Amino acid sequence: MCPIKLIGFDLDDCLFDSTGLSDRARVKGIDAMINLGLKIEREEAVRILYDIVQEYGSNFSEHYNFFIRRLNQLNDNIEFIRYNDRYKFIAAAVMAYHQEKVNSIRLYNDVEFCLQRLKELAIKTSIITDGLPIKQYEKILRLKIDDLFDLIIISDEIGMKKPNPELFKYWLKNFNIRGEEAIYIGDRIDKDILPANLNNIHSVYLHRGGKYDRSDANIKFEGNFKPDYEITNLDELFDIINENSE
Amino acid sequence: MCPIKLIGFDLDDCLFDSTGLSDRARVKGIDAMINLGLKIEREEAVRILYDIVQEYGSNFSEHYNFFIRRLNQLNDNIEFIRYNDRYKFIAAAVMAYHQEKVNSIRLYNDVEFCLQRLKELAIKTSIITDGLPIKQYEKILRLKIDDLFDLIIISDEIGMKKPNPELFKYWLKNFNIRGEEAIYIGDRIDKDILPANLNNIHSVYLHRGGKYDRSDANIKFEGNFKPDYEITNLDELFDIINENSE
Repeated sequence: MCPIKLIGFDLDDCLFDSTGLSDRARVKGIDAMINLGLKIEREEAVRILYDIVQEYGSNFSEHYNFFIRRLNQLNDNIEFIRYNDRYKFIAAAVMAYHQEKVNSIRLYNDVEFCLQRLKELAIKTSIITDGLPIKQYEKILRLKIDDLFDLIIISDEIGMKKPNPELFKYWLKNFNIRGEEAIYIGDRIDKDILPANLNNIHSVYLHRGGKYDRSDANIKFEGNFKPDYEITNLDELFDIINENSE
Repeated sequence: MCPIKLIGFDLDDCLFDSTGLSDRARVKGIDAMINLGLKIEREEAVRILYDIVQEYGSNFSEHYNFFIRRLNQLNDNIEFIRYNDRYKFIAAAVMAYHQEKVNSIRLYNDVEFCLQRLKELAIKTSIITDGLPIKQYEKILRLKIDDLFDLIIISDEIGMKKPNPELFKYWLKNFNIRGEEAIYIGDRIDKDILPANLNNIHSVYLHRGGKYDRSDANIKFEGNFKPDYEITNLDELFDIINENSE
């Protein structure tokens, strides 16, 4: 079999705990409002905020604004928030949210060792990620990993988004290698595993327990949705490399 | 004459050095891009960025994005910035810009003493400011002054903007006092001094050297544009209070 020459990684919930970081940051926002005098049970506030994130999407920029609007309509038990308090609460929440995101973003423990070992093996590395380019690069720069990869692809930069298989074809072409010589590691069956399989790339489903993780034993993935491998730690990647180099 | 019972302050360039902070933050953004490998003279970069701020306004959210776009069109001497570098530069600039804004915002030296003395004199205090409510409250919270004022008015919250004299009428009505019993301090003739004068509020033109400061001796303000007082430091405010209490 052909040895592996190239490995691609998804970013969020693959290289760092994106789901956990967002969860913590959102709660910090709630706490900031409560500390400033907002009268609401923390648990109820979190539930309402998550409804809004669910309804408007995680990249919507007005979560806390809509949270305050909704409180004024929703619950007779909650004291009406007067206009001169509204933006104070929203500003405090946004500040606390960003502070948490800036201060506590960090790589999963297994990432640096993995990248170092891949470099020693002369295997090329890439990130392929969807998301708003500025936000994605902000994460990459804060994680200090921009120099550790041979190529970073933010899908919006080239106008093709996961799960478009052309995005992965573009990636292979950039390195002039075939799918059989590449591995792609992601946390989503629909957006990572499917397009990798369609390009004959070895697909690895990484279980980090993030919001898209479906590790339920009752779910069986079939055909092009079936990952070639499932792992919970990047150390296991080297077994896969070895297996494909024999 | 009637003693002074209420004093209003503009926020930006009155209580803190808003112009200087923005200038420093914008240059930090430029430096971050140069540090990441952008090939341009710092001075030229600053000039181009300020053209963009001038053209699109200071609250436009895409200054650095447009900066990069413009570089690729503008100057044959500047190396073309490929798509996979663009958002890295923009993200780095935005991060550095915000970091400077967060870390180095501080009150002018004379503010705390002034507010403390006004409290001792039992004179009520307010902020009246235009600007995006979340941004304005972010400044107020970072400066830790929200509890130091009896009332904070962000004009957009009540749907009236400077120089609408009704905004200042609303302010007086809130405290149930007459214009003659109030002082308003601002850095703009058109937006601060004019509406104060129209409400018979004692108008104070504070020269901090910010971007709207017109302290040129050749400029004479007349009629409703003429400030009752001009000062360079908030300590001078107490002379004005004394003068109007005799």
